[in-house]
Amino acid sequence: MADQLTLYEDERIDDLLTNDLKIIQSKNVFCFSMDAVLLSHFVSVPVKGKIVDLCSGNGVIPLLLSTRTKAQITGVELQPRIVDMALRSIAMNHLDQQIHMIHGDIKEAHLFLEQGGYDVVTCNPPYLSKGTGDQNVNSHLAIARHEIYCNLEEVIIACSKLVKSGGKVALVHRPSRMVDLLYFMRKYRIEPKRIRFVHPRIDEAANMILVEGIKDGGVEVRLLPPMVVYEENGEYTSELMKIYYGG
Amino acid sequence: MADQLTLYEDERIDDLLTNDLKIIQSKNVFCFSMDAVLLSHFVSVPVKGKIVDLCSGNGVIPLLLSTRTKAQITGVELQPRIVDMALRSIAMNHLDQQIHMIHGDIKEAHLFLEQGGYDVVTCNPPYLSKGTGDQNVNSHLAIARHEIYCNLEEVIIACSKLVKSGGKVALVHRPSRMVDLLYFMRKYRIEPKRIRFVHPRIDEAANMILVEGIKDGGVEVRLLPPMVVYEENGEYTSELMKIYYGG
Repeated sequence: MADQLTLYEDERIDDLLTNDLKIIQSKNVFCFSMDAVLLSHFVSVPVKGKIVDLCSGNGVIPLLLSTRTKAQITGVELQPRIVDMALRSIAMNHLDQQIHMIHGDIKEAHLFLEQGGYDVVTCNPPYLSKGTGDQNVNSHLAIARHEIYCNLEEVIIACSKLVKSGGKVALVHRPSRMVDLLYFMRKYRIEPKRIRFVHPRIDEAANMILVEGIKDGGVEVRLLPPMVVYEENGEYTSELMKIYYGG
Repeated sequence: MADQLTLYEDERIDDLLTNDLKIIQSKNVFCFSMDAVLLSHFVSVPVKGKIVDLCSGNGVIPLLLSTRTKAQITGVELQPRIVDMALRSIAMNHLDQQIHMIHGDIKEAHLFLEQGGYDVVTCNPPYLSKGTGDQNVNSHLAIARHEIYCNLEEVIIACSKLVKSGGKVALVHRPSRMVDLLYFMRKYRIEPKRIRFVHPRIDEAANMILVEGIKDGGVEVRLLPPMVVYEENGEYTSELMKIYYGG
C-alpha cells in the first residue's frame, strides 16, 4: 500500500483500532479527538443511503462510519491541507468507492451538494468562540478549534439544508453551548431527539454533549444514561474500552 | 398551635424535616414531591428582596425557601382548595409575615403582581401534556400534574413577566421536555445559566432537570455534576440525605 502513499514531514500514521483502519495525522495540522470517535459511535446510521460529514478534518468520522454502514459518505472540509490528508487516508484504506472528500465551505455546501438529499449529517464543529481560548496555535489548528469561518448557528443551518425531512443530524459540542445547540436545532427544524452527556468521571460535570435530531421531528427528547470516560483509577471505563478497542 | 388549626378529613400534617417546619398534605388533593424539595435547594436566593413561586401548590417551596432567606415570598396557586391548605400551613408555622399566598391564574399574575418586580421566580409546573398519563385521577391532582390550565410556554412567559432584568428564574421539569424548556427560556429572555440533572441511580438516565436562568443574561450555561438519588443498596445518597435531613 505504501507504494502510493506520500507522508509529509510532520505527519504520522495512527491506527484507528477498528477494521484495520489507519489515519494520517499531524499535531501541527490536525489530529482527531475522542469527540469524533464518540460521535461516530453515537449517530444512528442507515444500512445504505447517503451521509455527509461537515467540518470533516482528516476524515476520521467518515472512516469510522465506513465500518458501520454501506452508505455513501461525503466529507466537507475547508482547509486544503487537511483535505489532502483525508484523501491520502481514504486511499490508504481503499475506501475511495465509499468516501468522497470535498474541499469547500460548509456555508455553501448546499450549492455543491444536494439540498435535502442526505439521510444523515454529522458534524464535530469548532467549539470555541472567535477570540477566546489559546490564541497562539497556528492557523490550521485555530480554524479547526475556533468559530473563525463558521459559528454554531451557521453549522446548524448547513446541516438543516442538507438533511432530508425525517433524516438525522448528529452533533457533538461542549455542554456550555447546549442552549445554543438545542435552540438553533429547533429553530432550523432539526428537533433534538436523543442526547447523551459524557462525563470525565462519574462524579464530575459533563464536558461533552452528543445530540441527534430529526428534521421535522416531533417534540420530546430522550436523555440517555451518562457516559463515563475514566474509572476512579484513571483507566478507561469498560464502555470506552469497547468503543475504542472494538466490540 | 393546634388551637387555630382546622384539618379536613383526608389531610395530614407532615414534617418538612428542617427548622421544625410542618406542612398540610392530602393524597387526594396535593402532596409535594422530591422535585419541589430539590428545586428549593437548587435555586439561588438573595438574603432579602422579593421571591414569587408559581404553581405553588400547598406552599412547599415558599415554606422551604423561608429557611434560606429573609425575602418576602409570594405563592400563586390556581386551586382554592390547595391555597387554603397552604394558608393553614403558613399560619401553623407562624410565617404569615414572610409568605403570602395568592389565589390566581399564573397567566394573569402580571396583572395582580408587580411586573418585573421580583428578584427570583420559582416554579414546579405541571409536567404532563394534556391528555397523556393517568387520566383517572381526580381534578385536583390532574390540574397539578397536567398542562390543563397552563402549558410550559405559558409558565415561562409568566416567569419572564414577573422577574426583573438580572433576576433569576428556577424551574424543574422532566428531561424529555428540556428542549422546550431551554428554547422557551431563551425565547422569553431568561437565558439558562445553571443546569443540574438528577439521576435515580448513577448509571441511569436523568429523570429530572433543574435549571436556573437569568433575565437578559449572557449566553453560556454551566452544567453541574450529576445529582444521584439512590445508592446501589436503595438508600439515599449522602447528598440527598443532607438535603432532606439538613446540613
